[in-house]
Amino acid sequence: MFSPEISNLITQRKDQYLQQLFTLLRQKSISAQNIGVRECSSLLKNMMEDIGINTRLIETDGHPVVYGEVIKDPEAFTLLIYGHYDVQPPDPLDEWLSPPFEPTIRDGKIFCRGAGDNKGQLMAQILAIKTYLDTYGELPINVKMVFEGEEESASANLSSFVEKNKDLLNADLVYTSDGPMHDSGAPFVLLGVRGMLYVELTAKGAKWENHSGNKGNIVPNPAWKLIDLLRTMRDENGRVLIEGFYDNIREPTENEKEIIKGLPFDREQVAEKIGYEQLNMNTEEYYHNLTMEPTFNIAGFTSGYGGEGSKTIIPAQATLKMDMRLVVDQDPDDIYKKFCDHVQKYAPDIEVNHLGDMQPSRTPADQEIVNVVTKAVGESFNQNPVLQPSLGGSLPDYVWTKILGLPSVIVPYANFDEGNHSPNENIGVDNFFDGIRCTCQVIHRLGEYSKQR
Amino acid sequence: MFSPEISNLITQRKDQYLQQLFTLLRQKSISAQNIGVRECSSLLKNMMEDIGINTRLIETDGHPVVYGEVIKDPEAFTLLIYGHYDVQPPDPLDEWLSPPFEPTIRDGKIFCRGAGDNKGQLMAQILAIKTYLDTYGELPINVKMVFEGEEESASANLSSFVEKNKDLLNADLVYTSDGPMHDSGAPFVLLGVRGMLYVELTAKGAKWENHSGNKGNIVPNPAWKLIDLLRTMRDENGRVLIEGFYDNIREPTENEKEIIKGLPFDREQVAEKIGYEQLNMNTEEYYHNLTMEPTFNIAGFTSGYGGEGSKTIIPAQATLKMDMRLVVDQDPDDIYKKFCDHVQKYAPDIEVNHLGDMQPSRTPADQEIVNVVTKAVGESFNQNPVLQPSLGGSLPDYVWTKILGLPSVIVPYANFDEGNHSPNENIGVDNFFDGIRCTCQVIHRLGEYSKQR
Repeated sequence: MFSPEISNLITQRKDQYLQQLFTLLRQKSISAQNIGVRECSSLLKNMMEDIGINTRLIETDGHPVVYGEVIKDPEAFTLLIYGHYDVQPPDPLDEWLSPPFEPTIRDGKIFCRGAGDNKGQLMAQILAIKTYLDTYGELPINVKMVFEGEEESASANLSSFVEKNKDLLNADLVYTSDGPMHDSGAPFVLLGVRGMLYVELTAKGAKWENHSGNKGNIVPNPAWKLIDLLRTMRDENGRVLIEGFYDNIREPTENEKEIIKGLPFDREQVAEKIGYEQLNMNTEEYYHNLTMEPTFNIAGFTSGYGGEGSKTIIPAQATLKMDMRLVVDQDPDDIYKKFCDHVQKYAPDIEVNHLGDMQPSRTPADQEIVNVVTKAVGESFNQNPVLQPSLGGSLPDYVWTKILGLPSVIVPYANFDEGNHSPNENIGVDNFFDGIRCTCQVIHRLGEYSKQR
Repeated sequence: MFSPEISNLITQRKDQYLQQLFTLLRQKSISAQNIGVRECSSLLKNMMEDIGINTRLIETDGHPVVYGEVIKDPEAFTLLIYGHYDVQPPDPLDEWLSPPFEPTIRDGKIFCRGAGDNKGQLMAQILAIKTYLDTYGELPINVKMVFEGEEESASANLSSFVEKNKDLLNADLVYTSDGPMHDSGAPFVLLGVRGMLYVELTAKGAKWENHSGNKGNIVPNPAWKLIDLLRTMRDENGRVLIEGFYDNIREPTENEKEIIKGLPFDREQVAEKIGYEQLNMNTEEYYHNLTMEPTFNIAGFTSGYGGEGSKTIIPAQATLKMDMRLVVDQDPDDIYKKFCDHVQKYAPDIEVNHLGDMQPSRTPADQEIVNVVTKAVGESFNQNPVLQPSLGGSLPDYVWTKILGLPSVIVPYANFDEGNHSPNENIGVDNFFDGIRCTCQVIHRLGEYSKQR
């Protein structure tokens, strides 16, 4: 099934490919702290050009996008590959077993900040193109690449970049390798993400803390203000009471429902992994809750005294952090407006702050292109992938599905324990080479598919 | 009105009396840290004996009680004076302008840990007896004194001490000088306190924090568990819904209602002092809420992320600290049982911890003895005192009213800005001498009253 020439070349070049990854890993590119990001964009551009990818830096209001393309024929099928070359800060430094920017192999894994998220996966894509070109002299399809430098800073300029470059980015399919493979170790094909709205609510009482005895029943308590507001927002069964919150939710298709029923789910294994033994859901409930339902989560509630023992005070302030995961076609702007209207109606003196948002995305599972990719991934890993209609979490996938109107698939290459954002982040050596092979096979099958179109 | 001999003697002895107070202040007596407490009890005993007070240390399961008496005639009227010789820890040390255990006079105030709370007020009582004895050779009534060493540690052994020594402590009236005078600067006569029940609630979700995207709608959120419980405990108007919470509240008497209506209340001044400009209460509402109504206060709510910006987590735990101020005849044990029963019924997996309690107390305002004390206080300060049926806060006053069944009055001598429990605690020099004079006058008027009985 899988091309022996490709496999052989990858095996021959193991050391060379690892060294190329290590070169990229050693170059810091911490977007949040603006450390090394521009240097990394230049390094990446040079590496891509060396491979034969026509590459340039495209400036944004933040860090530049590294844009590359290998165009066979402007009319041919075009795959757009997305990834990011920026990384998280390495803190806490003292928890790293080897230096965070010196790639180190231990137990079959490459440890380095960015190894899994996302440089290892990004390099797998580039080196797949190199491998393909060096094996066959050309690609069977057009490939475009967008590697952004701000994914770890909420992709602040990605949507405007995409808006401005619609023609340049014109394609038939978007392909992203980011995040970990399925918990079970199986390959993973994701057809969307949940969106997000993150808000902070601040309630105030008196200007300062007062004594709960001498001022009890005199000064208003901001923690009660928040709780009184929250009880108008959500009933005791967890249903959100904000008017119109559920209005735009797209019903799962029959196909999606079928897919969900067939997904792998080991209740005990999941329960152990999340640290919640009482987990009591079947496969359908689990995946429906995780991918088809919005959340209304309290990420933080802070008011008054939280230390040991007792302190008799009326807090001066109460702060609530909430994140809502949204499902298609909930729009974070619309939900934010409805949220603010609700606060305005029930507790106008409570302050709302918008801390971030992201649109949800979903690519319909019944497109033939989804089958082509899923089949190619399965062939390359020699194992059927888990096809999931949506990730529980959020990624800026909507820029492809919503702004460009393209189908988009997410095929993670990192091991499930990659420890992204944590000390000792890593990618399995095998995962890196499996990733190279997988992109080659996807390109190969898309080439066949485009001929039949 | 006020005895010129007494006044003159106090004036003559100003330096001597200040030095005696300074000696007591220099001796540390931090009950919570067990620093110097026993040494202080011995020092105080010696000082009292030098004055001619028959004094002994009575051991408890904690720090000793310094018990003193001047008995004229076992059948005569007996005044029991209560105070405490222990102090709060001096932290934070770097905020003190002069060393915390070196009494220093600045701007007419004595700065030292314990100056206001309670050594300055306790010494005023003792030196009043010295002044009275040195002026007239004897007291017109019996005086007993209980100075405990654990008031800053929740008076852990006071109630059992009183239970065990009912005969010894037999008296006609209990007199306490602790806390600050009325905000307005007027003298203050308090006829009781609110009680207290302090509980901590802990709700748990999964064993550890989970990602709010990848686990949202899968792992239960402990902050929501607490909020769902709280909405069953209190309605949106602040009314407590725990069954039987209001059962044993004693209706204010007509006399108490009248007193409350006549209390001084400057809305703007109070609003400024508590930092809540929107305060919108009249005199009656203010004092009724503060002294006749229980509270249901959130002193702390802590769950998840409380730092800057956003963090996308489902907290593993949520902790709530609540203090309820109770009014006569609510019993903290009974309320605690009702509270636990409620939790057991609505959220049995939420853990309740009992962090402290105190019984409320109230001495009826219509007793003649109350008039006698109020009149004497007014004479000595040359200003009518504010007579308040209850303090908003809590003191262990119930040991006198409930265990001994005695009337009890609280007449604070410290300035309203004494800064008790804070750095730069102080007592006004004038407050100290006014206190000596006031106790003398109270003893004098009680002597006259007891002759008429």
